[in-house]
Amino acid sequence: MPHRWLAHRTHSFDASGIRKVFDLGAQLVDPINLSIGQPDFDVPEQVRRVAVEAIEGRKNGYALTQGMPVLRDKLQAEIDQRFGHADRRVFVTSGSSGALVLAVLVVVNPGDEVIIFDPYFVMYEALVKMVGGVPVFVDTYPDFRIDIGRVAAAITPRTKAIVVNSPANPTGAVACDAEVQALAQLAAERNVLLISDEIYRHFCYDGQFVSPARYNPKTLVIDGFSKTYGMPGWRVGFAHGPAEIIEQMIKFQQYSFVCAPHPFQWAAAAAMEVDVGPQIDAYRRKRDLIVEGLSDCYELVAPRGAFYAFPRVPWGTGTEFVAKAIAEHKLLIIPGNVFSRRDTHFRLSYAAADATIQRGIEALRKLARQTG
Amino acid sequence: MPHRWLAHRTHSFDASGIRKVFDLGAQLVDPINLSIGQPDFDVPEQVRRVAVEAIEGRKNGYALTQGMPVLRDKLQAEIDQRFGHADRRVFVTSGSSGALVLAVLVVVNPGDEVIIFDPYFVMYEALVKMVGGVPVFVDTYPDFRIDIGRVAAAITPRTKAIVVNSPANPTGAVACDAEVQALAQLAAERNVLLISDEIYRHFCYDGQFVSPARYNPKTLVIDGFSKTYGMPGWRVGFAHGPAEIIEQMIKFQQYSFVCAPHPFQWAAAAAMEVDVGPQIDAYRRKRDLIVEGLSDCYELVAPRGAFYAFPRVPWGTGTEFVAKAIAEHKLLIIPGNVFSRRDTHFRLSYAAADATIQRGIEALRKLARQTG
Repeated sequence: MPHRWLAHRTHSFDASGIRKVFDLGAQLVDPINLSIGQPDFDVPEQVRRVAVEAIEGRKNGYALTQGMPVLRDKLQAEIDQRFGHADRRVFVTSGSSGALVLAVLVVVNPGDEVIIFDPYFVMYEALVKMVGGVPVFVDTYPDFRIDIGRVAAAITPRTKAIVVNSPANPTGAVACDAEVQALAQLAAERNVLLISDEIYRHFCYDGQFVSPARYNPKTLVIDGFSKTYGMPGWRVGFAHGPAEIIEQMIKFQQYSFVCAPHPFQWAAAAAMEVDVGPQIDAYRRKRDLIVEGLSDCYELVAPRGAFYAFPRVPWGTGTEFVAKAIAEHKLLIIPGNVFSRRDTHFRLSYAAADATIQRGIEALRKLARQTG
Repeated sequence: MPHRWLAHRTHSFDASGIRKVFDLGAQLVDPINLSIGQPDFDVPEQVRRVAVEAIEGRKNGYALTQGMPVLRDKLQAEIDQRFGHADRRVFVTSGSSGALVLAVLVVVNPGDEVIIFDPYFVMYEALVKMVGGVPVFVDTYPDFRIDIGRVAAAITPRTKAIVVNSPANPTGAVACDAEVQALAQLAAERNVLLISDEIYRHFCYDGQFVSPARYNPKTLVIDGFSKTYGMPGWRVGFAHGPAEIIEQMIKFQQYSFVCAPHPFQWAAAAAMEVDVGPQIDAYRRKRDLIVEGLSDCYELVAPRGAFYAFPRVPWGTGTEFVAKAIAEHKLLIIPGNVFSRRDTHFRLSYAAADATIQRGIEALRKLARQTG
């Protein structure tokens, strides 16, 4: 019986609720799909060209564990310029998810607590549990801002790390400079590792992105190319932080991911030259469509980054609302309890064509007038 | 201090000794490199072409967690034909290493024992320790064959799995049909999961490959495209086994690897059509060169598969011998203690040009006449 063979950690979390919505959506003809966590634009042409050249140029063998110099050196130079930290090192990972896995393996002991802001990206909770850690949730409803007093109160002698994600999935919230600075200083004072997931940092619509690493040089930063350059299927990300932690993450990479896909490392280096301003402007307009289309009938904190909005459901639970949205309007959105201890909101992604967004808004306006 | 942040598991194993040899080799001009764990042939032209078409065809977004149907369905059909097991399911992983990581996460609890044949591929020990498991080594010196009595004696109530790797890294040993059958039956009788790493299965020079899954339908098989088709930098592998285990591995993939690189899944499906017979014939000849060149001056079990040989050192320890080989002959080989509790042998890879192999043989013949 395989049952006896399954480790206890297999029982500690479910398959992602996002995937369940995908499975439902796969059965629908012409759904309104606002469930997607990836940009609707493709990899820029000049970046695809470099990938093809790398493949034709026999760059198909193992890459170096830490990443190819063509990419790693370029990232290191950019990071040195941005932060100027003597001890900050970078390496190349298999997507930002790969960086998160390695970070958790390297820092979280069984029983260690990791503070996560609720709502949160689903992987944080799963990864902490996967290595035997204890997720500790700090509630950020209703405005999804960081209340530094709540964070301070959640820190215990067992707290090993705080995970912050700004711009945030699923809320689109962007922490302001004062919040970032306060969090960075609190982590330093309490000797807790701050892990900053900055995968959406280019998607800021109302101001400059601020990394907590600016205020706390020991911050471990998770970053990647997937969202910014339309290449999530290429699995190239990176992490930078204190050299001692990065060295350990590279060691664990040897025994797990081995290396990020080789030809795409060359392409990612080329991507760093691309101006994504036009794409960000397009996404700002999509954000505006959503806010204008829903604000009068939904309780919605206007998102300032990423490509998600997280409105409160007008009736029922998040799960009930989403079930009706899918069944009666073919609208694919994700119930809030996938990302939260609460089930009062839903996530929509506006990484979609404008026409799809408009159809989604119409369906949501009808749904607001219905009741469960 | 980052020190306080590092988890205990970071202390449980070192960086790979293979990487240390790479670092040494990087400082040498024109070394004789017999340390490489990847084929010296490139991805076949028609397979590269499909990868390029996939990239140009916008297959750059996330792949399905379990793998794209173009590849997964083709693998499932082939596996159904090979084994005819009602309950055998396959999914696509980020290289065979990705499959190993997920297997260990899904089956090994802290304290669980996993039987590993010594000498062994370095990742097995590291991964078991990474999740808190206990590697239990079954010695296979001097002939690297499976002594079923020793395996039976090593099984305890805490034994969760046995990892078998045939053709084997680092020895090139290929288990014969009787060994495979006995091991498969023992695992079934004792209700222990058999994990069969078959990444080198196409590299069999003196007979047909036999999978233990043929005799034990609950075997979990790890496989991949890296070695067979010259694409280790593309990170595409797969695993097949009992549906319940595969389902859990897919769930963990959602929260870790996310998906194997998307365009390369299309290319891997095309690779399944390629006849690698000529490459295998070329590697058989390379194997013959090694055996003929070294057998009179080294104690060497003639390898029957993979692309490694594992001779006994003629003097000193493996570490001492390799240090001298590198320092005095610019010959890059790996000391046996990287793969073993013993330090009495060394690994050489013949995945190299014939001229490099000849230079290696000459250097090794000189080394045999030296003393430490």
